[in-house]
This record gives sequence, structure tokens and C-alpha cells, in this order.
Amino acid sequence: MIISTKRGTPQEELQKIISEFESQGLEVTLIRGTDYNVFGLVGDTTKINEKVVAANPWVDSVTRVSAPYKKANRLFHEADTIVDVNGIKIGGNEPLVIIGGPCSVEGDESTMKIAQAVKAAGGCMLRGGAYKPRTSPYAFQGLGTEGILAMVKAREATGLPIVSELMSEDKIDEFEEYVDVVQIGARNMQNFQLLKAVGKMKKPVLLKRGLANTIEEWIMSAEYIMAGGNENVIFCERGIRTFEKYTRNTLDLSVVPIIKQKTHLPIIIDPSHATGDWRLVESMSRAAVAAGADGLIIEVHTDPEHAWSDGAQTLKPDKFRETIDQCRQIAQVLGRGVRQPLD
Amino acid sequence: MIISTKRGTPQEELQKIISEFESQGLEVTLIRGTDYNVFGLVGDTTKINEKVVAANPWVDSVTRVSAPYKKANRLFHEADTIVDVNGIKIGGNEPLVIIGGPCSVEGDESTMKIAQAVKAAGGCMLRGGAYKPRTSPYAFQGLGTEGILAMVKAREATGLPIVSELMSEDKIDEFEEYVDVVQIGARNMQNFQLLKAVGKMKKPVLLKRGLANTIEEWIMSAEYIMAGGNENVIFCERGIRTFEKYTRNTLDLSVVPIIKQKTHLPIIIDPSHATGDWRLVESMSRAAVAAGADGLIIEVHTDPEHAWSDGAQTLKPDKFRETIDQCRQIAQVLGRGVRQPLD
Amino acid sequence: MIISTKRGTPQEELQKIISEFESQGLEVTLIRGTDYNVFGLVGDTTKINEKVVAANPWVDSVTRVSAPYKKANRLFHEADTIVDVNGIKIGGNEPLVIIGGPCSVEGDESTMKIAQAVKAAGGCMLRGGAYKPRTSPYAFQGLGTEGILAMVKAREATGLPIVSELMSEDKIDEFEEYVDVVQIGARNMQNFQLLKAVGKMKKPVLLKRGLANTIEEWIMSAEYIMAGGNENVIFCERGIRTFEKYTRNTLDLSVVPIIKQKTHLPIIIDPSHATGDWRLVESMSRAAVAAGADGLIIEVHTDPEHAWSDGAQTLKPDKFRETIDQCRQIAQVLGRGVRQPLD
Amino acid sequence: MIISTKRGTPQEELQKIISEFESQGLEVTLIRGTDYNVFGLVGDTTKINEKVVAANPWVDSVTRVSAPYKKANRLFHEADTIVDVNGIKIGGNEPLVIIGGPCSVEGDESTMKIAQAVKAAGGCMLRGGAYKPRTSPYAFQGLGTEGILAMVKAREATGLPIVSELMSEDKIDEFEEYVDVVQIGARNMQNFQLLKAVGKMKKPVLLKRGLANTIEEWIMSAEYIMAGGNENVIFCERGIRTFEKYTRNTLDLSVVPIIKQKTHLPIIIDPSHATGDWRLVESMSRAAVAAGADGLIIEVHTDPEHAWSDGAQTLKPDKFRETIDQCRQIAQVLGRGVRQPLD
Repeated sequence: MIISTKRGTPQEELQKIISEFESQGLEVTLIRGTDYNVFGLVGDTTKINEKVVAANPWVDSVTRVSAPYKKANRLFHEADTIVDVNGIKIGGNEPLVIIGGPCSVEGDESTMKIAQAVKAAGGCMLRGGAYKPRTSPYAFQGLGTEGILAMVKAREATGLPIVSELMSEDKIDEFEEYVDVVQIGARNMQNFQLLKAVGKMKKPVLLKRGLANTIEEWIMSAEYIMAGGNENVIFCERGIRTFEKYTRNTLDLSVVPIIKQKTHLPIIIDPSHATGDWRLVESMSRAAVAAGADGLIIEVHTDPEHAWSDGAQTLKPDKFRETIDQCRQIAQVLGRGVRQPLD
Repeated sequence: MIISTKRGTPQEELQKIISEFESQGLEVTLIRGTDYNVFGLVGDTTKINEKVVAANPWVDSVTRVSAPYKKANRLFHEADTIVDVNGIKIGGNEPLVIIGGPCSVEGDESTMKIAQAVKAAGGCMLRGGAYKPRTSPYAFQGLGTEGILAMVKAREATGLPIVSELMSEDKIDEFEEYVDVVQIGARNMQNFQLLKAVGKMKKPVLLKRGLANTIEEWIMSAEYIMAGGNENVIFCERGIRTFEKYTRNTLDLSVVPIIKQKTHLPIIIDPSHATGDWRLVESMSRAAVAAGADGLIIEVHTDPEHAWSDGAQTLKPDKFRETIDQCRQIAQVLGRGVRQPLD
Repeated sequence: MIISTKRGTPQEELQKIISEFESQGLEVTLIRGTDYNVFGLVGDTTKINEKVVAANPWVDSVTRVSAPYKKANRLFHEADTIVDVNGIKIGGNEPLVIIGGPCSVEGDESTMKIAQAVKAAGGCMLRGGAYKPRTSPYAFQGLGTEGILAMVKAREATGLPIVSELMSEDKIDEFEEYVDVVQIGARNMQNFQLLKAVGKMKKPVLLKRGLANTIEEWIMSAEYIMAGGNENVIFCERGIRTFEKYTRNTLDLSVVPIIKQKTHLPIIIDPSHATGDWRLVESMSRAAVAAGADGLIIEVHTDPEHAWSDGAQTLKPDKFRETIDQCRQIAQVLGRGVRQPLD
Repeated sequence: MIISTKRGTPQEELQKIISEFESQGLEVTLIRGTDYNVFGLVGDTTKINEKVVAANPWVDSVTRVSAPYKKANRLFHEADTIVDVNGIKIGGNEPLVIIGGPCSVEGDESTMKIAQAVKAAGGCMLRGGAYKPRTSPYAFQGLGTEGILAMVKAREATGLPIVSELMSEDKIDEFEEYVDVVQIGARNMQNFQLLKAVGKMKKPVLLKRGLANTIEEWIMSAEYIMAGGNENVIFCERGIRTFEKYTRNTLDLSVVPIIKQKTHLPIIIDPSHATGDWRLVESMSRAAVAAGADGLIIEVHTDPEHAWSDGAQTLKPDKFRETIDQCRQIAQVLGRGVRQPLD
């Protein structure tokens, strides 16, 4: 940690700062500059709160040099973490995992039909929302348990593991029992209570990036889950909020190489929510694979124009198959394949 | 709702769209343009999902004309809502309410000392965090129930009503029993489960704006609480996330007149979290009052350099008193006063 | 154009609005809603100023349905525009064009050396800044004419056409004489005087997207150049400014399919300025090609650690070659190749 | 300047870095940390290019401690700069300066009428655009010289000094002769050629903040002008671009105390362009004054509904007078007045 103090800070104030840090077991080096003095702190600074240090009126700025996360940090865990979902492996050099399915689960029959279409097109997991975070209290809020059970039936028929969003602690038992990958949605990325709760679950967690969260905050949310004991975290980028409104969000693909540099965890991309427009999904899927992502999660529906939510960003099965075919070829350029659905 | 369709949309597709909306009881007007056709829908469009309409490949854009909120809408409720907190009234032309207190509650003694200083300086409510949303799992997470009880003791001694953040449903009984204003933090502004839960509480709710949430999304979150039956919602702006990093967030004061135009609910400003820098708090407090805010919530600590969190943005009691004095004079220019603490 | 008026707008005010538009030769349709009235205007609305219409106190919102650009609009020009640079074709299904070179031109010798390395690695054009837009007045501002002439010598030796940034009108003759592609930098994207001036040039223009400009504003800047008579515009995305600070900017690859839908012009990507970090350039280059871009412009230097500017985002020739090799394979998946340098 | 290097950087690489900086006359201190090494550089670091240092593959991050500006820096110039415009003083504790006038100059008669209304309402300078930066090449581009001359006539009649935007170097003589304050618009804030040119002018410069420019970049643009010899720079905040679209831009009032801390120059606020909505101008004007601004620049027109541009954000004279009256009372709370127009 680097602390700079203002020009003219009295000697005794500098000494007070030094003593305070030394009393916390840190080694302090002082560099006297022309207009500023700078302190370097060496030792375990994770418990020092920058904002409290900055409260000292003689302090000008506080900069953290070491990353504030440990369990997720590639520095302390060099090998790639491979997450295993019912035998399907995600991360490292494993084949890419393509997940497809509806935004909202709409019933047994349509879920079954979509699951079969997803599998036929080459998708190896099924996504579907049973509990839906909706901006409006008057909008459809999801089928709840009935939706989860519709997905379970589709899994029984197709063998596709299921991914669904958990919105509250009171459904944890239900998800532990029925769901294969527990999704934490963008709006709950910093719902720390929920992160602590899934940290105690045994199921892998798909952690979506918040609309306006930095990469570091995102990794810190993974750290919350890992600190609770659940190290099977998969990052999922789904676009960030910017001034540009032509797309629903701005897909930030640079996070793929960055997450891989900074952490050892897998990362997949959601081009459907990122763009909000099915006409952009194919192109952004290819780009995500070329960037080095470990997989994709794409909205697929057999009848998007009558879907109960988010039809505008949903692919039909044929387009989904084409997209997977192109992604497979691009993955090969990078020396990887695309995972086939299990039989 | 206005729907534009692409040039060259076949007549039968236009007819299909018209029939579909008419079958939902809406009146449809078609305007044929040179390069586009436009439909206007009249009737109750609140249940129509724009994204599903946009899934139709012939549809170019969908624009909602009426606001998607009703209970919060000034259009259907002309008079200002005045929220009553233990006899202290917030909103309309009532005197401004200034809330002060520590970021985190640190124990009985310090809370008592700060509460007395807040009251002596002219603050009329006490804020304090017992459950803290922290980016890092390794940071201090708040004293919990012990913190709430420390605030209760301070209330007994000073008469100041207490404001504290609720982070999860399982503490609702505790908050209903002990807390006077239930704060929903920025990171939980779209934690819809929590919004539904506080919608059933009897206590007023202070709803902070999310870091990257639009004004409309913010009002929709108020609508969630109101739709649940709790109409005592107070908006609180605390800065939004932008490219500018000199301040912690960018304080958006234009929301004050906008919230007052669009809704009938009160709005207060949090200059401490908005700026992250105590040197900016006084200036932004004055600006907030001049903009027409109904109150302020400010971090105050008797010893910010040793506070357990956020010292950098915290005022000492003397500076808090000066700030209130200036705000009182500005409020008078607008024909309002500043609420005195109750005895 | 769609105009909505407030509830309770008097009949005579509605009539006044209608008459005003009719007097401008537009056809006006009125849709009466429950809470709002909506007008649809049909005809040539390009000269109507939305902000003036919105000045009417009875008007609630104004929405433009047709795009405000014509010459760049794919609607009126279906075929892809292919820009020809000394025989190298950009756009449509032509092979991808990879441009390499230093951020700043540093002299004859180093430019020659870099040009040869760019060509040997497979790049087919040379970039280099002779006039540099620098945030600080104390930073190196470029070699000026001397830099342009160094590039000319490198072109003579290698045959690579040269791309350089024009910052002011007074250098137009120099650029018309010596430079093959005239770059308009991000900071000048809305320097409308400069756009008008290059609209009269005969050389192709590489138009970088402004740091905080929407896609529509970007297309409008192309429209300025085209309206002046120069229809050879190549878009270049180089990242937008967002809250995320880990990368220098956020690369928005979704613009590739969007620009191709909305316009008939080519688009290339600058992964160096977008990320500001050479470790991300290879990954983002692959992603750009997979997204469908018509080319790349990449910073290359034989000795980045001693470059005069922007070394942090610069590739060495070996890495540049590897990047091109990967891009070539990805381009093939899309049925395209990568352009070989001319001999 | 603080430079951190990666864990495992070989001793000889560390030594190479140290030698390189020492050869540039800097004093280097090395702090060895657990996971990182950190260097502190003391001496004149203004000429060191951070991005070139960061090109070294062993370097992890580079942080500048001293501000990169000198002439604008309050650290080296403690007293407030007071800018004098024909005897009207701006800055320090001088009375606030309120500037009013049309977005675009529309002719002699209307300019005269508006100027008289501005003066009668209490405005002490006249603004008006003769050269207009317009997103569309098809929009009205301003009356040019004719517009400047219309303002000159209005100045002769009313005594109000005139403020107008300069868009290109070729009009510098015209502005030097006729205009009292030369405005650099938001889109040209980083048009460095133009900044250099106005740095040689004798007239005060009103420097608007760019749509997406940081406070530091803004100060650096002032530094460009000052480095050229013209130290009479007035900052003008006019809103930044964010995700929020209800307002045209987001007015960032925290810049008022920040600019005053970091520089010695005056700052005024433009609430018209910041909000884009006349209904918000009065409230934001009051807030700007309460924040400590040295003045306001407001769009005023006698007939906004027929103005040639930006009517939506324009005040009528009566509302302008009311706004000034309120601002005068708020200025008094801060111990300042509002400047009366000269006779």
C-alpha cells in the first residue's frame, strides 16, 4: 500500500502515521519528494481500510498495490480451475460449453420441446428462469417451483444439466436438490447475503457481472463465495451499462483475457443479455469464442415471438445450431473443441 | 405504446400485428410513413412486454409513451406525500430533515456520543449501519443486532429516530421492532425479493438509488414497495457511477426536481457516499438544499480518523453544525426551514 | 417523427401543433390515448429540430423514427461500399486489411525498420502518428512534416500505403499530397470544421469513434464527410469510455454488426487504443475478426520499451505476426482471407 | 511517481530500471514487498511517459503522485485568479456573473430584443452562438460573421460584453476584434490545435468540459491555453455523458469545490446544456450557486418555441429574472452578491 501525504505535513504528523502502521506490524518506508511525501507499507495490508487512512487530513491519496483477493487470485493458484457439472467440465483447455434455453420457463411442454431443440443443435446444458428479477412489479415473475420441476423433467428426458437463477436464500434447499448450476444474476452480484449463502452450497455457481461493477468488484464477489467454501465459481459477462443505448448493454469482451490473467476460474459469455438483440447474438458469440471464453449461454426458444419474456434477444433453434457450428470452427483455431451433449 | 415496423413489411404481417393487439383489447392506429409504418396502441399497455413485441422480425422499434408506474406517479396522485417518522414529517413543504451518524455502528459508547453530537449540532435523526454491505468478505461486516441495540439506546437518550440498512429478509422482525426508517442500500435497489418483503412492513423505507440505475428503474423499485402495501417511501440519491473517478460517485442533483415532477414522494440526498470526500460534503449539502431536496443524510463521527469504515467521507460534529447552519439559510430562501430535533 | 403531448392539453393547443406541421408540408395523424395524445408525422422530417418542438410546454416527448442520415444509410444504398487504397480494397467480402506501425513516428531509420517488420509479418499498410493529440502541452507533440516524410520513405521502400492522423485544416495539402488514408482521431470526431474539410479531400478517411459518442453520432460524422463529397469513409472503433478503469477504454465489438446493418461502409478495429495493454491485443484482434470486422489497426514497434509514446499497448513484430496468423484462420471460418502486402 | 514490478522480477531487471531512471537525474527508492516491489521516483517526472514505462513486461503498474499541470495548479499559485471582462470581474469573492442569451444568434432584431431582456432581468453578459457545432450536416450551422456582428450591435446598445463559441483557427482575428469572451465548446475541449491558438489570444477563454472528459483532462486543456501565454481561463461545467438518459447530460456540481481546490481559476455552470430541459434550469442554477460557482451561463430567448435551436432548454425572460433573484439570495448566504449589469 502506497500513501502520499501533502506538502507541508508537519514532521510530527508524519511520525504519527509511521508509528500507527508500525504498531500494526507493517514495515514502513518513507520517500521524501519535492511536493509530496510517500510511504510504502510492506506486510499484510488486507485488513487496512483505505478510506479510514484517507480520513487523515494530511493524507492526499492511498493506493493499494496488491490485489485484495486471495482465493480467486492466479498468483496463489497457478493451475486453471476446472468446474465439473455432472461430468461436463468447464475451464482450462476443456471443450467449450454452450448452454441454451428460454429466458423464462413457461411450462412442461414448451421446456421439453426447447430442451430437445437445444440438444439437437449441439447445446450441452439447458438454461431457464423460474424466478425472474423483473423491473416492474406488474410483470410476470416466473413460475417458481413449477418452473424448476419443468426443467428437471427436461433434464430427465435429454440428460442436459440445468442452470437457473437463485434470487433468495429461502430457495436454497430447492436449488441444492434440483438445479445443477446456480446462477447469481447481475442485479444480485453484490447481494452479499446471498453470496455468503451460496458459498455454503455444493453446487457450482455461475456469477454474472453486475451492470456497473468493475472487474475487481466482480472477482471480490467470487471471493465471497469461495471464502464460504464453494470454490466452483464460473464468471459470466453479460454486458455493462454505458452511455450507448443502441444495444441493451455494452459487451466487454476484454474481460476474458483479464479474468484468465488475474484468476484461475473459468469464464463464459452471455451474448443475449449483453446485446438485447438476436441479430447481434451470432456475431458476438463468435467473438467471445475467439477472445478465449470457456463457453456461452444463449437464449433459445422455439417460438420467440410468443415467448413470455425477452423474445427480442432470443435465437430460434436453427440459428442456434448455425452459431454453434461457427463457434466450433473458431474454437479449433484456438486448439479447443465444443463439448457435445451427453447421451 | 408506439411500434414502428420496417420498410417492406408485407401487408399480411402488418395485419397479423394489428389483430394480435386488438385481440388484447387495445385500439390500434396505423400511420403509413415513407420508410416506416408506425402503430399507436391505446388502452392498458402495462401488461405488454416490449421485448416480446420486439422479437417480431418485422418490428424495428418499440417505445412506451405512458410511464410504467402507477402508485408512485404524480399523474394519478397530485398532492405531495408526507412521510411521518415518529412525528417528524418529510416531504411537501415541511422543514428539511437532516440525518447524521456514523457509517458503521461501533458500540454503545461511541454511538451515544455521536448521537448527542448530532442532536447538539441540529440533526433530527440518527443514521448508523449495523449490517454493512462490504465489497470484501474480509472486511468488517457490522455489529449486527448488537449495533441495532446500541442505536436503540442512543434513541432512548436523545429522542432521535433511527435509520439503518436492512440487507436480508431474515432481519425484518428485528427492524420492524427497533428501527424507525428502514434503509434499502444502493446495491439492493433491485433485490426484488427484499423490496417485496419491505412492501409488507409498516415502517417508512429510505430507498437509495442504485449505482447504475436510471430514474425510471428507481421509481419502479419504489413501485414494488408501494404495490406491496407500504406507501411510505423516501427516495435517496447517493451518486451514480460514471467515468469520472476523482469523486467516488457522481452526485446527480437533477433528480431532485425530476422526482418531484414525476412522483409525489419525498427525496433526500446523501452527499457523503456521493462524493466519498468530506471536503466536498458541505458544498454538496448546500447545493442539494438549493435544488429543493427534502433532507440530507450525512456521515458524522466524533473521531473519523479512527472510524471503522469510510472515515474519508465523514464530517466532525463542528463541520456538521456549520453545514446545517448554511443549509438552514438556503432553505429559507426557498421558503422552508430545517427541522429542529425533538426534545 | 412521433410527438406525445401531455394529458389535458387544450384542444386549441393540439390544433396549433397540427397546423404548424401541416404548414411545413407534413402529414399529421393524431392518436388520442388515455393519458396522452400522440402525433405521427409523415414526410421529410430531417429539417425539423426535435429540441425546438420539445420547447412547447404541452409536448411531453419527441421520438425520431427515421434515421437522420442518408448518404451513409444502408436503406438507400444496399451494396457494400468498397474503399480502394492504392489498389488495396477494404469492405464487402474483400480480404481483411491489417495495418501496423508505431504510435508516433520517431525518425527515418526506426520507421523504415518498423515498416519492414510490419510487411514481413503480413501487415499490408503502415500507420504512424506525425501530429499527435496529447493531453499534456508538455508531452512530445509529434515530428510533424518530418514524420510524414519518414513514412513516405518507408512507403517507397516497402510499398505499404500510409495512414496518419490529420489534426488541423492547415495540413490538408500535405496530407492530400503524401498520405494514403487520412485518419480523424477520436478527439476530433465532432470537430465539424475538420470533417467538412476532409469531405472535400480525395483521400479515403479513417473515422475513429469518439470516446463518448453514440453509434448514431458516429454515423452522422461520416455523413458530414460524405455530404462534402468524399464517400470513402472507413469506420474505426477504438473503445469507449466507461466506469471500468482496468482497460484504457472498453472495446465495443457489437458495433461491427450494427455498422454493417445500418450503413454500407467498412469498419475496422483498433485493439491497441481500445485496451491500452499489449497483453490483450491478440485476444481482442481475434474477437474483432470473428465479429466480422473488415480489418485491424495495431500498434507495432521493434522496441516498445523505448518507444516515444504508448509503449504499453504496442506489439513486437513476432507477436504481430502470430496475431495475423490467428486472424487469418478465423477469417477463413467466415469465408474471408487476410490481404497480403503488395510487392 | 510510483512504479510497482511483478513478483519474481530478476534482480538484474530491477537494477536496469533503477539505472535508467537515475540516468535521467531522478532519485530512486526501492521498497521490497512480499508479492511486489515498488519504486518511488523523486525529481522532475513531468517528462516521463507512464505508458512507455508500463511497456516494460516486468512492470505491473505506474502511478503518478504529483499533478501533471503547473500553471493551473493552486499548489504553485495560492491566490484566486480574477478574470476581467471589460471591467466585469469573475472569480475569487467577486459578485457572481450571470450570462444569458440565445443558443443561436438569429438576426439583428431578435438579438437586440433578447439582449435588452437579459439586461432588464439582471444578466450582465450576453451569450449567443454564431458558429454552431451541429451533429447533423443538414442542420442550421449558424449565421457566422453576420451573427457576430448582430451581437456587437446588441453590445453597443446594452453595454453587455459578448460571449461566443470559436470553432476554428481561421476565425481568430474576427473573435479577437469583436468578441469579449471566447468560448471553447465541449466537443473541442481536446482540439489541441485550437487550444494552442487561443493560448496566443488576448481575450479571456471560457473552457467547457468535454462530454466524457475527466477533471484532470479538463485542467490539462486549461494548461494548454495557459502554456501558450493566455492565463485568463474560466472553466464551465455543462454536464457529462452517463447512462442516465432522462436528462441530456448529468450535471456534475462536485467539480465546483474540486476545481477551486486544485486550481486558482474561476468556474461557472451551464445548467441549460447540462439538463437540456428548461423545467430543471431554475433548480440547477440555485444548486450551482449554493455549490460555490462564480457564475452561470443560461439560455434565454423571448420566444423559445420558435427559436432556431435548443428551445427545449431555454428560459423566457421572466423565468430568467426569477432565477437570478433566487440566486442572488443564495449568493448572499455565501457572502457574495450577483453582479449588476453595467450602465
